[in-house]
Amino acid sequence: MSYRYAYNTRDIKFILKEWLPLDEVLSFDRYKEYYSKDDVDTIVDQVRKVAEEVIAPTADDGETIGARWEDGQVYIPPSFHKAHRFLQDQGWGASNYDVEGEGALPYTIFGLLWEMMSAANPALMPYVGNAAAVSNVIRLCANEELQKKFMPNLLSGIWGGTMCLTEPTVGSDVGDLLSKAYPTDDPGIYKIKGQKIFITVGDRDDVENIIHLYLARIEGAAPGTKGLSLFIMPKYWINEDGSFTDNDVQCIGIEHKMGLKGQATAQLVVGENNNCRGYLIGDPPDENGVGQGIMQMFHMMNEARLDTGRLATCVAANAYWNAKDYGKERIQGRLLTNPKSGRVTINKHEDVKRMYLLNKATTEACRALLAKCYYYEDVREFASDKERRKWAKNKLDMLTPLCKAYPSDEAWGLIAESLQSYGGYGYCEDYPAANSARDCKIWSIWEGTNYIQSMDLIGRKWMQGKGAIFADTLKEIEDFIATYKERGYTPDGQCPLGLEKEMEHLEKALKTYQGIQMMIGGYVQSGKIGLMAVYARRILTATAQLYCGFLLMEQAVIASKKIAELGPDHYDYNFYLGKVLSARYYLNNAVPNVWHVADLIKIGDTSVLEAPDEIFDY
Amino acid sequence: MSYRYAYNTRDIKFILKEWLPLDEVLSFDRYKEYYSKDDVDTIVDQVRKVAEEVIAPTADDGETIGARWEDGQVYIPPSFHKAHRFLQDQGWGASNYDVEGEGALPYTIFGLLWEMMSAANPALMPYVGNAAAVSNVIRLCANEELQKKFMPNLLSGIWGGTMCLTEPTVGSDVGDLLSKAYPTDDPGIYKIKGQKIFITVGDRDDVENIIHLYLARIEGAAPGTKGLSLFIMPKYWINEDGSFTDNDVQCIGIEHKMGLKGQATAQLVVGENNNCRGYLIGDPPDENGVGQGIMQMFHMMNEARLDTGRLATCVAANAYWNAKDYGKERIQGRLLTNPKSGRVTINKHEDVKRMYLLNKATTEACRALLAKCYYYEDVREFASDKERRKWAKNKLDMLTPLCKAYPSDEAWGLIAESLQSYGGYGYCEDYPAANSARDCKIWSIWEGTNYIQSMDLIGRKWMQGKGAIFADTLKEIEDFIATYKERGYTPDGQCPLGLEKEMEHLEKALKTYQGIQMMIGGYVQSGKIGLMAVYARRILTATAQLYCGFLLMEQAVIASKKIAELGPDHYDYNFYLGKVLSARYYLNNAVPNVWHVADLIKIGDTSVLEAPDEIFDY
Repeated sequence: MSYRYAYNTRDIKFILKEWLPLDEVLSFDRYKEYYSKDDVDTIVDQVRKVAEEVIAPTADDGETIGARWEDGQVYIPPSFHKAHRFLQDQGWGASNYDVEGEGALPYTIFGLLWEMMSAANPALMPYVGNAAAVSNVIRLCANEELQKKFMPNLLSGIWGGTMCLTEPTVGSDVGDLLSKAYPTDDPGIYKIKGQKIFITVGDRDDVENIIHLYLARIEGAAPGTKGLSLFIMPKYWINEDGSFTDNDVQCIGIEHKMGLKGQATAQLVVGENNNCRGYLIGDPPDENGVGQGIMQMFHMMNEARLDTGRLATCVAANAYWNAKDYGKERIQGRLLTNPKSGRVTINKHEDVKRMYLLNKATTEACRALLAKCYYYEDVREFASDKERRKWAKNKLDMLTPLCKAYPSDEAWGLIAESLQSYGGYGYCEDYPAANSARDCKIWSIWEGTNYIQSMDLIGRKWMQGKGAIFADTLKEIEDFIATYKERGYTPDGQCPLGLEKEMEHLEKALKTYQGIQMMIGGYVQSGKIGLMAVYARRILTATAQLYCGFLLMEQAVIASKKIAELGPDHYDYNFYLGKVLSARYYLNNAVPNVWHVADLIKIGDTSVLEAPDEIFDY
Repeated sequence: MSYRYAYNTRDIKFILKEWLPLDEVLSFDRYKEYYSKDDVDTIVDQVRKVAEEVIAPTADDGETIGARWEDGQVYIPPSFHKAHRFLQDQGWGASNYDVEGEGALPYTIFGLLWEMMSAANPALMPYVGNAAAVSNVIRLCANEELQKKFMPNLLSGIWGGTMCLTEPTVGSDVGDLLSKAYPTDDPGIYKIKGQKIFITVGDRDDVENIIHLYLARIEGAAPGTKGLSLFIMPKYWINEDGSFTDNDVQCIGIEHKMGLKGQATAQLVVGENNNCRGYLIGDPPDENGVGQGIMQMFHMMNEARLDTGRLATCVAANAYWNAKDYGKERIQGRLLTNPKSGRVTINKHEDVKRMYLLNKATTEACRALLAKCYYYEDVREFASDKERRKWAKNKLDMLTPLCKAYPSDEAWGLIAESLQSYGGYGYCEDYPAANSARDCKIWSIWEGTNYIQSMDLIGRKWMQGKGAIFADTLKEIEDFIATYKERGYTPDGQCPLGLEKEMEHLEKALKTYQGIQMMIGGYVQSGKIGLMAVYARRILTATAQLYCGFLLMEQAVIASKKIAELGPDHYDYNFYLGKVLSARYYLNNAVPNVWHVADLIKIGDTSVLEAPDEIFDY
């Protein structure tokens, strides 16, 4: 079959060693005794090797064998069992989220390692990672007894984990879910009844037990999301002596998906025999019927949102690197600029190079955005200063919708361009592009559709702290531009770094973005709130482009200095040149979309809002 | 399985009866005795029924059974055999291209009927249509003897047909192909030797014979495309008595594709036993070694390019109509503008309506573009006035790259939005969206990649007739705007049709488009020809958006008048309202991309051109 791992680690090392303030992170009590910056290369190289040698060889099995359902049990490819066990045993799995454990890697580093591993088989990684995320919710929200009961086996990967939100009749509107929980005579233990669908790795045959985090409404609680509670609902009930009893959690099937075929997407029927029990996390609903469930689940959802963006990024990046490897070998056509020089490999053609640079710049933009968030995760959790922790939390909250939606929107177009660069072979499953295209489409949908993310950004995040938190991030960009100008940038083009035009575009994008906020505010005030919805997804894209443009410019400034230092004969010269060219491409081609979107919003087209349902019959 | 035919015919009837000058076409000698405008509804309805009842039920077999290769023979699903035979026998197949035959439908009508049929099973239709296209080349380019020998069985669908261009080492650069032809003692008959790949419907088990149009170089002919000749190369050689002899055309395998699995994409090895013969079409290469092959093949390629755009359009349109049908049933969430009114079906949500209107407007734009070309096909071939025939040919030549590339570029994004509107089910193969997404991706690649189309537009079509032909089309748009203004449009907004803003956008797009031509001209003159390549695909998109914006505005003007006439209670009111809203959406959201692209070109980013290959390793 076709899977091929083509990941390059250089940008990841650059992010960790030259761009992000990793020193700050490594100075936190949590990490200071374990790691120094010098370890980065070794760790990254080691995980690159694991990804290539242990994970990547399992990817084709996901496609050819796939996840299989039979008589209430899901079977996953045997090679997945082995790879999962290897990662857990070698410390590359859930154990990294053990805050009690020694030597866990910083999120800043581990987030990027996870990207490398995910690219090697995106279908496999939730089998590994979801247990950690479940454990994390239990750590943050459940009592010590439950922590002791569940966390060790989740963190060692002996048990798996899932998050159960979606039901046959609810998805985006999770507050309408029908799953019910009823108190039992045992305090904290509830009977649960309901159905869930689209449960990622919701059943499997390679772990002893599966610990579902199950969202349900306790009888009598308030309607809507606020009335929900969260339960630890194991597939098998764990008796006092450690033995298991069936817990009436039935897997009644899995979905037949366009891609990610090794990843079981399960339908669960729970408590059909009135025999399913779960542990309530935290307190029961208060006197107003308000539960803690949705806020607890958000710990896992926010993590899953970052992970979704990371999956989209790494699959697109891997598709791109595969495409350029193919392009080096495949001879076809002559250069437009020099047709007489004879046939060339396709990587020489202008339009093919455009596809590559589009992919390179955009995947680097997504990686930078995500990496910034891994850094904020560390600061939020482990900085000694409370204010700084809060600052990081705010940043992270604000960037999360961008992290989820922007890469997963872009991936579809990016992979299409990688595929296109193969010519007809791109459409053939013997080459890796088609598989990546099929895999990536779910990520714009799950974990809150990209529209949900957009409304989260505009309807909530813009307003948080009366708008101060968002304004603070725009200020960051403003300050960056100002600093750059002070250091020698002048409008007449005297900046030594040669990025005047790009900096102008960043500045123009920032100004027009502030205009977008004003216009949307105006529409809302004048009763045209529907226009906010109509433009929401385009605004999210523009937001990400503005912010990523800033990040790539930060990186380009560092790279420009290195270029001047190293000179063209240095082995690392082309990497830094590539960073500058990524920024230039992105600022000259993607960032101008910010003012294009502003233009569109100014038009304020109401055709969507005026359209009666009936016109869509034609 | 998942296939579902959801086609609506109303826009097609509108195009034929109210928009295009069908009366002119029906007045041509070729048609005047057979059809009147009154027949349109009946014909369209009948073919809609055939598409739904005969063709659509075969679509799932394409996915589940697929095309299968075994021991040198391709087997296609049995239901494909039946549907193919039915279409040929009932006059909906190749026989419509029989210019000798009576009662063939005008291209203007048949082109739209073919769209409806293709949507019902896009994998099936080349089995039906390619024979007609081969027959057409033979009619236009081959001698009478060959016409008599091959055309009848091609036109009745007793034999199939293909076009053989691509080889393992050549695709876009067809002039480098390695297939060779050697004269024999029989005049006009050559021995052929070579390999071909990606041959659509290149082998099959439902016809007596397959007539390949095979591009090869006669020994001693000039290098490059100009040295090529075209051969009629039957799978089985037809003896004088009508019996067959094996012609040494071996099918050695078919591709495993992302979609269109019922459509055999064959690898052919020809003349391996030195025993393959073909008939040369036209004359052997002249004294300079220049053959007639590529120009002959272009008759079929240009037709195939229109067909490619049509396939992309109809698959996107069918995906959209399926999505909106789903949206009527699926209840989820509350309205942003009226949350207290309770849960609603998803087709009520602003962002879902945006997805629908984006799809509706864009597929209508593509359909209008293609339909205009079907009309030009009729005029080119059957108008009595020679100048008018030439005029139509020029228009058609110029629009062909748009027809091929714009719909096939858009389809990927459009279908993704249809898929997105289902939520998670969109990613499941039990619903029709995923299948459409997989099917559509090849169309941006085959029949000349969309980059090839873009360079054809900019590098050739812009310049044809010293630029006069292209300028004439821009003039058409200018005249339309002027006429509209005369009829009551004023910049202060007094136009009774309510499309002032949209007309302004069309005008602005036209002006900025002329600016794009100037800028590209400037870049070429200043030695920056590479920038033409870098922006080529975006320019093609902008060109199509400008032209389609014009076409949708033409349609909206007609529809606006109907709205005023009919009033809101008329059963057809919503169709016309939809036409106006499509135009408004398109002019307010797609057409502004023309000036966005102009902005980007003005930036003149050279990062792609400056990038050395080595940066793409990172």
